[in-house]
Amino acid sequence: MADSILNIIKKRRSIRHFIQKEVADSILLELVEAAIWAPTGGNIQMWYFVIVKENDILERVKAFSPGLLGDPACLVVICSDRKKAFEKAGTLGKDELCVMDIPMAAQNLMLLAAEKGLGTCPVGSFNKKAISRILELPEYISPDLIISVGYPADDAKPPKRKGIGEVTFMNKWSVNI
Amino acid sequence: MADSILNIIKKRRSIRHFIQKEVADSILLELVEAAIWAPTGGNIQMWYFVIVKENDILERVKAFSPGLLGDPACLVVICSDRKKAFEKAGTLGKDELCVMDIPMAAQNLMLLAAEKGLGTCPVGSFNKKAISRILELPEYISPDLIISVGYPADDAKPPKRKGIGEVTFMNKWSVNI
Repeated sequence: MADSILNIIKKRRSIRHFIQKEVADSILLELVEAAIWAPTGGNIQMWYFVIVKENDILERVKAFSPGLLGDPACLVVICSDRKKAFEKAGTLGKDELCVMDIPMAAQNLMLLAAEKGLGTCPVGSFNKKAISRILELPEYISPDLIISVGYPADDAKPPKRKGIGEVTFMNKWSVNI
Repeated sequence: MADSILNIIKKRRSIRHFIQKEVADSILLELVEAAIWAPTGGNIQMWYFVIVKENDILERVKAFSPGLLGDPACLVVICSDRKKAFEKAGTLGKDELCVMDIPMAAQNLMLLAAEKGLGTCPVGSFNKKAISRILELPEYISPDLIISVGYPADDAKPPKRKGIGEVTFMNKWSVNI
């Protein structure tokens, strides 16, 4: 029976310890499919997904990504075509739509991975120029976010989160719920 | 029986026509709960959520939000505390973590809403200064994304999406899957 989406949302953790077990290509493609069904402003669809499984390339990416921890079996590097975003929607497209579309796509990918028992971690701390060179990206393609993907080595404990009452207001800032 | 997450991901549409039906506060709080379980870089949790249901305020927000279409019963304005993000993680926090955390939180919110039969639309096109004034936000709080929420008036057709083969590469840009 399918788990409720709120359960999956709550059980997704940022995973930084993985076991050495390959992730099937068919699963990785399903994760990308989930990603492309996230909202994309004006249906611009400026994202691209580079799956990294080859060990040499993965290690080189890791060397330039201080935020990438553990030994994930693979990575999904989510990229955006900033030129296309600019052509279709001007600076709004380039500077705002891209930065909304990419994390939303990533979140879909990570939630589906969680449902499948995979661990993921979104990594924003990496050297963009180096990653572009390693993945041989064209100059107009920006690597925006790396998602590590693999089978988790242990159950990561949930971090503390604020209570809803601390962060939610009704109609204006002065009115707590 | 719960729907599979991939089905929910695919059935979520950006909705711009709503029926006049109130959304219960208890549901809105569940949506916020889903949002706060999205990844947040360094567990900074710099987000705040302003639920707008009062008609006067909703209309004033609409007047300054060209991207906000239809008559949603309510809005969730997702805000970030840029000062806190800067204090905790420097410019990386202010400029990068915020722009990742907010859309990921939004995507959780929109997926749970879709599971509950609600329609949503992420809106990035609005006058930030005006929205800050209307919601009486402190100067260090940035309204980053408006999510309209309501019961959809009709089944929106899915937009065309690219095939996975068009946007996915293996190990480097030159290798299509």
